[in-house]
Amino acid sequence: MFEAIFENMLKSKPIVHCITNFVTVNDCANIILAGGGSPTMAHHKDEVREITENSQSLVLNMGNVHDVTAMILAGKKSNEVKHPIVIDPVGMGASKLRNEVFKELSQNMNFSVIRGNISEIKAVANGEGITKGVDASEADKVTEHNLKETVKAAKRLSMEFKSVIVISGAIDIVADKDKAYVIRNGNPIMAKVTGTGCMSTALIGAFCGGNPDNTLEAAAAAVTAMGVSGEIAFKKMKKFEGGTMMFRMFLIDTISNMTPEIINGEMNVEEM
Amino acid sequence: MFEAIFENMLKSKPIVHCITNFVTVNDCANIILAGGGSPTMAHHKDEVREITENSQSLVLNMGNVHDVTAMILAGKKSNEVKHPIVIDPVGMGASKLRNEVFKELSQNMNFSVIRGNISEIKAVANGEGITKGVDASEADKVTEHNLKETVKAAKRLSMEFKSVIVISGAIDIVADKDKAYVIRNGNPIMAKVTGTGCMSTALIGAFCGGNPDNTLEAAAAAVTAMGVSGEIAFKKMKKFEGGTMMFRMFLIDTISNMTPEIINGEMNVEEM
Amino acid sequence: MFEAIFENMLKSKPIVHCITNFVTVNDCANIILAGGGSPTMAHHKDEVREITENSQSLVLNMGNVHDVTAMILAGKKSNEVKHPIVIDPVGMGASKLRNEVFKELSQNMNFSVIRGNISEIKAVANGEGITKGVDASEADKVTEHNLKETVKAAKRLSMEFKSVIVISGAIDIVADKDKAYVIRNGNPIMAKVTGTGCMSTALIGAFCGGNPDNTLEAAAAAVTAMGVSGEIAFKKMKKFEGGTMMFRMFLIDTISNMTPEIINGEMNVEEM
Repeated sequence: MFEAIFENMLKSKPIVHCITNFVTVNDCANIILAGGGSPTMAHHKDEVREITENSQSLVLNMGNVHDVTAMILAGKKSNEVKHPIVIDPVGMGASKLRNEVFKELSQNMNFSVIRGNISEIKAVANGEGITKGVDASEADKVTEHNLKETVKAAKRLSMEFKSVIVISGAIDIVADKDKAYVIRNGNPIMAKVTGTGCMSTALIGAFCGGNPDNTLEAAAAAVTAMGVSGEIAFKKMKKFEGGTMMFRMFLIDTISNMTPEIINGEMNVEEM
Repeated sequence: MFEAIFENMLKSKPIVHCITNFVTVNDCANIILAGGGSPTMAHHKDEVREITENSQSLVLNMGNVHDVTAMILAGKKSNEVKHPIVIDPVGMGASKLRNEVFKELSQNMNFSVIRGNISEIKAVANGEGITKGVDASEADKVTEHNLKETVKAAKRLSMEFKSVIVISGAIDIVADKDKAYVIRNGNPIMAKVTGTGCMSTALIGAFCGGNPDNTLEAAAAAVTAMGVSGEIAFKKMKKFEGGTMMFRMFLIDTISNMTPEIINGEMNVEEM
Repeated sequence: MFEAIFENMLKSKPIVHCITNFVTVNDCANIILAGGGSPTMAHHKDEVREITENSQSLVLNMGNVHDVTAMILAGKKSNEVKHPIVIDPVGMGASKLRNEVFKELSQNMNFSVIRGNISEIKAVANGEGITKGVDASEADKVTEHNLKETVKAAKRLSMEFKSVIVISGAIDIVADKDKAYVIRNGNPIMAKVTGTGCMSTALIGAFCGGNPDNTLEAAAAAVTAMGVSGEIAFKKMKKFEGGTMMFRMFLIDTISNMTPEIINGEMNVEEM
């Protein structure tokens, strides 16, 4: 399904400029490398414009709320040179500060992709929120029952922000205003490892860097790759009687060995 | 022994707010998740009060001496809403700055638990110290020979700070003013992995978040879980002919698969 | 070949003070521990002089361009007390800021060792550069064809900076003004893991800390250890059908189990 998307990324080896948080930055760099891109984590305001200009995409992760000035400088430059920007509104709704940071960022640049869990995306939609911590709240979760209306809301939000919207969870949704991919891959253990959301965002950044004119499919391909890798990694972990850290290792390992054939064999993607 | 402690934690899934250092922050987040809690690593002074208020415990790690203002704001709020605070005086005694930071923190909040290696705890006791680097000095080490007097000193220090005192090493001591747990689990290889101390502190934070009214047993259960996991992880590492990084993987993996039964089968805990 | 170098390091257990970037800091700390040293990652300007004074070597990594003041304070103190300084000019040539930071550092201290990829070292030599991102550019790469002239250039650069020059790549070069070691170990997968360069720098810091009077051989031994470990780790990874993260684990694991005998059995080192 996503063969051309994969091929474009592997051929272009995109440099992905990330301004991200210090908790999961190493995993983000490694998953970009595993996926075939080249990460650069520069976040000093005096160099981010240059760095962004020489990259192919920009990833902004709000787990870092200290480098907002650098994010704005990089974002404006990215828009100017027409590089995709992927934003991860980590903890959106969990504090006033995060809501303000998101507002400020969104007033200063256009995002190509917004990726979060359902609680964060709801907070993005409402301009406020009631998230506690950084995990999605139980009440918000996307289920088969509320799927159709959530897809509809994602499409509406996509129109509002002129961005692809990615909602991560047991069921993933990747939507622009007209079309949505509903992806039923992955494993619940992904919620027991810090940074699987950030890694997903980083990988979307790499795929968009290699496919700047097709960010919807690029994001869907990255999310699908993460989900399929999650399933394969879980099986390998069970084989070796490991736990959450062995799972993380195999998650990134599987991305580093991923091919379109593996994806096609395992993916469960529905268009809506 | 600690069945109720475990059960409380797993039921409450405590959000653990950590203001910690950038060296080991990822391991700390992952061990909290592995243990059944939910980590949030917010350290911006403009949001830490909100984040702390919506959490169940606060972990302050002095490997970070940049965010002292945020630590004080979070600590005061935590005391106000009666959440346990666990402090790790990393490198205490290694510089004047660390000694001053600890003094400033201790003047602005009450700690529920203070966890360090013996050199750090001695520096806490004396208000100064001669630590070099971040590892315990050879001369300070707790042995069967000086155990009784060290336990007595820990109880005295607990009275002084109104905090549970945790001294990590080949023999671990967890003490309040009346009672001490002496824990003889673990493996020397733990000293060859960065952050096993920080991880222990983070896990204590999770256990205290689920057991705010029994921080002595919560801390003892967390330290015991770490020690038992260290033993199991070492055996697994040997089986696969690995080294220090495979050990770290299995250390957190074992926490992610831990049950009271496993603890009970392996633990070596003495009350004094 | 490097038996005495290894022995000195293992005996002295050097404390290695690193001021480094937040992307790979954890791997750097762990590889120093694996190699037999003791890492301390202090980077607050108010304590770096004390920390450096109580250490045996200093590692400065320009992936961090925020703590330049702390780097200068630590560097001056290190020169004063005659500790080796190892600098990694990460991303040199990728932004004006990095070029300025390097210039400022080099005007304020003498480096014992400068380690980078060929693009970074070329930028060091020219005072400017055209690096994109943090990886070496294809056009710059050291091959058997341009090896002799590159070694000559490294020796010239060593004379100019009064530093050992380390150029990392498929072929590694470690040179002072008179002599060069050409090391043909390692595996291409090392470029698919973030921080293998930073780790190499950190390990050089540990070896130099234990061998302050022989930084040329210390650097060569560390680079050889990394290369040999890369080969062994790759074979283990293949055996377990892993990917880039399993490779990283085995890379550091192999350092943690390294002996002069293993090095001698696998190394491919030529003097030029």
